[in-house]
Amino acid sequence: MKRVGVFTSGGDAPGMNACIRAVVRGAIYHGAEIYGIRYGYNGMIKGDIFEMNSHSVSNIIQKGGTILKSARSTKFMTKEGRKKAYDQLQKFGIEGLVCIGGDGSFTGAKIFFEEHGVPIVGAPGTIDNDIYGTDFTIGFDTAVNTAIEAIDKIRDTADSHDRIFFIEVMGRDSGYIAIRSGICGGAELVMVPELSTSVEDVISALENEKRRSKTSSIIIVAEGGEAGSAIEIAGKVKNKLKEADIRVTTLGHVQRGGAPSAKDRILASRMGLSAIEGLLNSRKNVMAGVMKDELVYTPIEHAITIKKSLSRDLLRMVDIFNNRYKR
Amino acid sequence: MKRVGVFTSGGDAPGMNACIRAVVRGAIYHGAEIYGIRYGYNGMIKGDIFEMNSHSVSNIIQKGGTILKSARSTKFMTKEGRKKAYDQLQKFGIEGLVCIGGDGSFTGAKIFFEEHGVPIVGAPGTIDNDIYGTDFTIGFDTAVNTAIEAIDKIRDTADSHDRIFFIEVMGRDSGYIAIRSGICGGAELVMVPELSTSVEDVISALENEKRRSKTSSIIIVAEGGEAGSAIEIAGKVKNKLKEADIRVTTLGHVQRGGAPSAKDRILASRMGLSAIEGLLNSRKNVMAGVMKDELVYTPIEHAITIKKSLSRDLLRMVDIFNNRYKR
Amino acid sequence: MKRVGVFTSGGDAPGMNACIRAVVRGAIYHGAEIYGIRYGYNGMIKGDIFEMNSHSVSNIIQKGGTILKSARSTKFMTKEGRKKAYDQLQKFGIEGLVCIGGDGSFTGAKIFFEEHGVPIVGAPGTIDNDIYGTDFTIGFDTAVNTAIEAIDKIRDTADSHDRIFFIEVMGRDSGYIAIRSGICGGAELVMVPELSTSVEDVISALENEKRRSKTSSIIIVAEGGEAGSAIEIAGKVKNKLKEADIRVTTLGHVQRGGAPSAKDRILASRMGLSAIEGLLNSRKNVMAGVMKDELVYTPIEHAITIKKSLSRDLLRMVDIFNNRYKR
Amino acid sequence: MKRVGVFTSGGDAPGMNACIRAVVRGAIYHGAEIYGIRYGYNGMIKGDIFEMNSHSVSNIIQKGGTILKSARSTKFMTKEGRKKAYDQLQKFGIEGLVCIGGDGSFTGAKIFFEEHGVPIVGAPGTIDNDIYGTDFTIGFDTAVNTAIEAIDKIRDTADSHDRIFFIEVMGRDSGYIAIRSGICGGAELVMVPELSTSVEDVISALENEKRRSKTSSIIIVAEGGEAGSAIEIAGKVKNKLKEADIRVTTLGHVQRGGAPSAKDRILASRMGLSAIEGLLNSRKNVMAGVMKDELVYTPIEHAITIKKSLSRDLLRMVDIFNNRYKR
Repeated sequence: MKRVGVFTSGGDAPGMNACIRAVVRGAIYHGAEIYGIRYGYNGMIKGDIFEMNSHSVSNIIQKGGTILKSARSTKFMTKEGRKKAYDQLQKFGIEGLVCIGGDGSFTGAKIFFEEHGVPIVGAPGTIDNDIYGTDFTIGFDTAVNTAIEAIDKIRDTADSHDRIFFIEVMGRDSGYIAIRSGICGGAELVMVPELSTSVEDVISALENEKRRSKTSSIIIVAEGGEAGSAIEIAGKVKNKLKEADIRVTTLGHVQRGGAPSAKDRILASRMGLSAIEGLLNSRKNVMAGVMKDELVYTPIEHAITIKKSLSRDLLRMVDIFNNRYKR
Repeated sequence: MKRVGVFTSGGDAPGMNACIRAVVRGAIYHGAEIYGIRYGYNGMIKGDIFEMNSHSVSNIIQKGGTILKSARSTKFMTKEGRKKAYDQLQKFGIEGLVCIGGDGSFTGAKIFFEEHGVPIVGAPGTIDNDIYGTDFTIGFDTAVNTAIEAIDKIRDTADSHDRIFFIEVMGRDSGYIAIRSGICGGAELVMVPELSTSVEDVISALENEKRRSKTSSIIIVAEGGEAGSAIEIAGKVKNKLKEADIRVTTLGHVQRGGAPSAKDRILASRMGLSAIEGLLNSRKNVMAGVMKDELVYTPIEHAITIKKSLSRDLLRMVDIFNNRYKR
Repeated sequence: MKRVGVFTSGGDAPGMNACIRAVVRGAIYHGAEIYGIRYGYNGMIKGDIFEMNSHSVSNIIQKGGTILKSARSTKFMTKEGRKKAYDQLQKFGIEGLVCIGGDGSFTGAKIFFEEHGVPIVGAPGTIDNDIYGTDFTIGFDTAVNTAIEAIDKIRDTADSHDRIFFIEVMGRDSGYIAIRSGICGGAELVMVPELSTSVEDVISALENEKRRSKTSSIIIVAEGGEAGSAIEIAGKVKNKLKEADIRVTTLGHVQRGGAPSAKDRILASRMGLSAIEGLLNSRKNVMAGVMKDELVYTPIEHAITIKKSLSRDLLRMVDIFNNRYKR
Repeated sequence: MKRVGVFTSGGDAPGMNACIRAVVRGAIYHGAEIYGIRYGYNGMIKGDIFEMNSHSVSNIIQKGGTILKSARSTKFMTKEGRKKAYDQLQKFGIEGLVCIGGDGSFTGAKIFFEEHGVPIVGAPGTIDNDIYGTDFTIGFDTAVNTAIEAIDKIRDTADSHDRIFFIEVMGRDSGYIAIRSGICGGAELVMVPELSTSVEDVISALENEKRRSKTSSIIIVAEGGEAGSAIEIAGKVKNKLKEADIRVTTLGHVQRGGAPSAKDRILASRMGLSAIEGLLNSRKNVMAGVMKDELVYTPIEHAITIKKSLSRDLLRMVDIFNNRYKR
């Protein structure tokens, strides 16, 4: 394979630039030509494609976001869209692709490979950490660090006023950010989709805290849980605990940005290098990941269909540190 | 005056601890005894009062929140409450007070002085900066720095996706945090209560941006403006600009916490020292502030009634940097 | 075992407090009594020992340093010292110990166990990461993050002036911090004790950079390497490359402090809990660690004698990203 | 004036990019053409000059360093060099200049104006804050914030080990950074060139601390003081206080980098806008500054010759907070 392309797709994540850099420098090191594709599949369809060299990725390892831009593409969900994308790749002579993104992006990659035979190796870039085939995804560690910096700050004000704070963190359908930021932030309770914590559970935990004469509490809520958003849960709790001083903060998009942490820079560099080397060594339709600190390749199909489970070790720790019943 | 008390009141603000430290060390330096009162006026009523020494304030200058805790007191709004507070001060032999807080706290101080003659000197501690008699309040600089760190992060993701972001910052009834964080964050538009920016203005600004081929935009919204919350405004804009990719983030309580900035530590130290020295020099019913870099005392009455105006220089800069019409 | 003690020893590391918290809360959860020992082995000898409860470790997970203080003890190196320490433990009824520290501390623990039979479980707390039996030590991730924040800042000024910067990071006899912060900081060269990079190698790498028309360079130097300190190396390079604009920064003790990163808080919590649970389950003379993301116990003897090797994957990445010869 | 140039010169400082942005956007707003000159006077001599537009300065307000690069120019110190620079400006049709830099840069500007009549307005950009005509220079607030973050971290380790730390901060011939970071960091002593603190003073202060049973101390040393570097002073102190555990950290170049603080972004924006508006309004040979929160213009001659004094208020605070003799 002489000429390959790289693109980012789906929600951006800190460390994507470090990964792009590793792909580009790795390709050049191994004598391949490397092209950047802007705006994910949309740019592939439009031919928003350009040759990259070593300087193209200078001084980006520390930057949040993605220099290749990202987008969700509805056109690529159609057969016509994918045909156009294929024609553009042909035009530019691109024989293989590295796709940095999440499960939606990988699903597209899989279909594209099946229809047009273009080999793609994925690198998992999403703050949500909800992809099988890697213990951690690019951006997750930074997102958790951003969340705990916010929690540390909110703890200042919670303590000063003896308040109960509900803090909503990101993580559609998965409690990875919630559980880790909960432990790191010393939260009194963590509500994750994987467990069905009810509003009643919250109230009983808070009453338990009060008996232990804890005066301020922090409860971390993963977005998208059954019990509702942090605002909804807080409202219901307030209905029961009338005299409690309750506040809500939804951390939101700050969790996606910022300079990547050390761990994310290393992880993104390792997986980017592994992805390009896999592609140049004729791997196809796999995702480069790191499991138990080893570089591994997982079939894209597995990455997007197998459900990664939340560590029970971590769930147990929240209970122990708050001296609660054994689950 | 031989024995004085210090307390924090109202919403907490980064730098309050630096101010407490200055009051305590300043009192000791001048040979006075200093007592801490916990939970503001509530603690005064309950007699939650203790003697402090130099070690009581060791290693707190860098801490957010307030070691003396804070609260809003409804009891102190009653004559009976204030009588009880006075009796407690008598019991402890406290002859004067330093009150670190905002306008609500100062209003209480003024009435207390009128009723019971206890001299109080205020130090303005609130992130909102909405107090006359000082160019900056304790906590304001830190809050703006926290806001711009968040905006810098959101800019990463806005740029990566060509998105429009509405970011709501704190500041009831005042645009101080909004205007400064808007300029510092390179925002395309800043909506402050002081100007009546309508939803139509926002739409026309965004269309103007688009003509200049700007692909991402950040709009800062001060909470409590006429046009509604950031979520409401964004909803209305989305109705008109259907194809725009619009997101909303409400920064919330993170703005209140965190280690105080250098500027806030210096300001809090200067005003705390000035407050205690003023009190020991028989000032009463005044607030210690810094105007044009000079320490000044302002009658509490002025501090709570005069409306501080937003710098037109700063408002003008937002327009110039975005190359808009002259106001 | 009904009553156990916990102490920190050797150089402090961010996350030690999170580890203490996990030990204390874990002990209480399992019904044991837990005592804190201040100033490491010195405090053990002096009987600087106190009972801890759940509140003793409230609001410390985010704090750098160690609330139990630390010290290097020369007295404990003597038989008399250890006897006195043993007598104190007897006096307080302490039957087992959790020691949070590095290899020096563990060596003491091993001898103490051999002489007096007091079971000790270690938790590896040192920024240097130079302990066998765990992939990462408590404080290492934070130290690397602190180092790369500094490198990111120095990159600003290096780029603005086309300068060559030598940055010395911590890590006696080991290149862990150097190699990771080098990769994360996009360094042009990393000098670690594990490789014998000579001053000539540095000069040839810099000349290579120049040919590639790179205008600024950052070279990371691990302290304690054969080629000397960063200042010495820079001096020798300057002698050869007379016209180069060369600067040196020694990061120093900032690397030891600061709020622990998310990864360190999780790691410290897991290892602290594992250490206390191991102790209560009759383990002795072992260290709790995490290898390949699994909790493991390693004989203290192995932890202090086996040399952990530096990942060749990481060393290779520095070369690839700088497009150099294959090692 | 239709066409103007802008350049940065001397040591870089955080906020220079915010200043460049203000100059460029301000020029465009007022209908002028604006050219960037790279590498300060060196680039002027070489003709490294290019037209800028509004997009040239997008997304730079938050970046450290300077996109226009900087250099110290020996050629510009010669008459021939300045003649060449003048010829280049003529060639590009540049009629006036904004110079962002320190006193060396302004001295060059003054001579250049005298010889060739090119009007220059300066904006003070240096972390040292040692320029008359403005209360604060661009980059100073960020440098102090960087210093205190480092001091906060070192305090963690100092407290954990009962150590004495000497921390050297930047500031050739001036104690601005030292005095502010000393107050903000809660330092026990601050050594600035403006006061002749001797090694004996340090020793007596430390002995005083010990009597007050303070167990750890932080002493801030401004580089370039009479008593020597932090390393030299610490060595002498160690000779006297043999049993003290003394460490030294030299903060170095990290103080120059990093994202500018809110205060620096506002200040740089105000002064940049004021500089370009002054130039377009026919001012010449002046520096734009902010004194007592008002925009002012000061003759360049005064800016470079008048010595700005260190606030005695601040010096007094260090003593009071450490409960020492009145000066």
